[in-house]
Amino acid sequence: MKTLGVLGGGQLARMLALAGYPLGVKVIAYEPTMANSASDVTDVVRGSFTDEKKLKQFAQQVDAVTVETENIPVTAAQYIADCVDFYPLLMALEIAQDRLLEKQYLNELGIKTAGFADINSEDDLKAAVDALGLPCVLKTRRFGYDGKGQYWLRCQDDLARAWQDMGGQPLILEAAVGFDFEISVIGVRDQQGHIKVYPITENTHRNGVLHVSKVLDNSALQQQAEGYIERLLDKLNYVGVLTIEFFSLQGELIANEIAPRVHNSGHWTLDAAVTSQFENHLRAVLGLPLGEVSALGHAAMINCLGTMPKLEEVLSLSDQARYHCYGKSARAGRKVGHINLCLDSATLLAEQLQCLESRLFC
Amino acid sequence: MKTLGVLGGGQLARMLALAGYPLGVKVIAYEPTMANSASDVTDVVRGSFTDEKKLKQFAQQVDAVTVETENIPVTAAQYIADCVDFYPLLMALEIAQDRLLEKQYLNELGIKTAGFADINSEDDLKAAVDALGLPCVLKTRRFGYDGKGQYWLRCQDDLARAWQDMGGQPLILEAAVGFDFEISVIGVRDQQGHIKVYPITENTHRNGVLHVSKVLDNSALQQQAEGYIERLLDKLNYVGVLTIEFFSLQGELIANEIAPRVHNSGHWTLDAAVTSQFENHLRAVLGLPLGEVSALGHAAMINCLGTMPKLEEVLSLSDQARYHCYGKSARAGRKVGHINLCLDSATLLAEQLQCLESRLFC
Repeated sequence: MKTLGVLGGGQLARMLALAGYPLGVKVIAYEPTMANSASDVTDVVRGSFTDEKKLKQFAQQVDAVTVETENIPVTAAQYIADCVDFYPLLMALEIAQDRLLEKQYLNELGIKTAGFADINSEDDLKAAVDALGLPCVLKTRRFGYDGKGQYWLRCQDDLARAWQDMGGQPLILEAAVGFDFEISVIGVRDQQGHIKVYPITENTHRNGVLHVSKVLDNSALQQQAEGYIERLLDKLNYVGVLTIEFFSLQGELIANEIAPRVHNSGHWTLDAAVTSQFENHLRAVLGLPLGEVSALGHAAMINCLGTMPKLEEVLSLSDQARYHCYGKSARAGRKVGHINLCLDSATLLAEQLQCLESRLFC
Repeated sequence: MKTLGVLGGGQLARMLALAGYPLGVKVIAYEPTMANSASDVTDVVRGSFTDEKKLKQFAQQVDAVTVETENIPVTAAQYIADCVDFYPLLMALEIAQDRLLEKQYLNELGIKTAGFADINSEDDLKAAVDALGLPCVLKTRRFGYDGKGQYWLRCQDDLARAWQDMGGQPLILEAAVGFDFEISVIGVRDQQGHIKVYPITENTHRNGVLHVSKVLDNSALQQQAEGYIERLLDKLNYVGVLTIEFFSLQGELIANEIAPRVHNSGHWTLDAAVTSQFENHLRAVLGLPLGEVSALGHAAMINCLGTMPKLEEVLSLSDQARYHCYGKSARAGRKVGHINLCLDSATLLAEQLQCLESRLFC
């Protein structure tokens, strides 16, 4: 039996573990907190990401290690990589951890992003606002996710407040991007360099957090997204699943963010793709061939935040609803589960989405 | 979190446990041997099926109990049913445990079976062979599966040998049924009496053990099978998944066997039905609404006996292959896993089946 270590013990580790069992792959998580999402379904080693000895012991008991979050110290990743195969490679992790490096790297590959500037002082900020125009958004370079660590600047007065609030850490100023809608693309690359790209999804957010991802049938955008992600995966010599979030504006994709891991916008693949993103990630990092990624129907996912709607209620509303809870306790805004749908037609999907939304999420 | 107990800790309990996690249902198995298929993925209580105290303790820690095999003592089931909801109801278990009761019950419902006779003596056997004709098959009434506990009689000389071999226990003689092919139908009934019936599968066997199950698109047989299983489920006031195996002869279905549980011929539903048989069984026995049962494509399952083909080899042969190992050690003839396929067309499915068969199972 192959074993795979995962840094982080949240819902992504949980779903990786569940994807492992049919393959005979045992996933073991490493988690600093008492979070129990993964521990419901597999073994979790409790340890700090700064504990070199414990990390190395963990690495020595598995065949390879991967992550469920990009926000782990690169030093922790290095400890692991000294002992055993570690994916993503450190460079991908470093880029994904730093909004500035990320945008620079994307631009070098010819992948368009919003205009941006490195901000190290209040003067930098003033000059950059002059160059990029208002509104624009000041972000921490590191450790931001789901809209956290962001400050929107709408007028000149905001600059001082923003600097007061966020100054003293590495920052990036980003131009505001107008967009028609947001999409993401998930690709996976194996150890021989073969790449498969899932159908893109259109993503809608609520309060900065993903709310619905719906598979988008748009061959022009699909082709554009595939070209970009293939370029990025190859350039990084990447192994495993990687996600790029884009703004779509008048048929053009503008990259917003990279996640070097399985991604919330790919949870639909659990029920509606031949091979889920979780299984393909396991396959890639363990040196196995990739599985087919096409969709089995018209698919969408609704995120459940705060508290999970009751199982009985969801199943009563639709005999097509696929319920996925993460075993987490309720807390405002927390991702506690999702519901997948896979229908025969776009019309049926829209009807069912509308029904679930109106009954469960209003 | 709801908990469900399962009597038996083999691969069916394992797949029930895996189906439970996304629903927030914890499955706990009860198993007399050190079998580890379920214990890889969930908690297993080790105990005998005759240990009343342990069985009752087990029952008291879960919300309901079900079985992964019909071959458990009815007394054990009774101990459990005294404490907590137990499905299948004891009557269904008793019928499925006894080939004679089973055939009598089916016939009373107007469901055709092979001709049969109750055999309690060598004289009974002689008289029954005269009545049913040769060839015919002598079977133990109880505890037979996968072709075990059967003796084919082809000539008069076989009678004495068969009696010597099998006499002294309750027996049934069954007429040989000519058939075009074998099918099975899997139905599920919830606690309100709603029934859903999966697409029927055509089953082929090797050495008396299921080899391939392939979803069969034949509306006349589907309708016939649905009528029969609905009649049976309703009559038994059944809750959960039940399977009937049939011989198909010139468009007519002749029932062969009932299994009051999830079934090997339904493993394709893990990857190719909206809701798997495992999830629907959990839903039914826990009092939840049933999920849609239609197929997502042209589906089939190949059983892996003895040893599991190597993961890497299977995945290399087809990027559509869905690998399911049960975490069991190799042993001749043992069911150690299966491979599912779900393709867009019957032709593609036939090609892939042929490819996997010729490379892995010849």
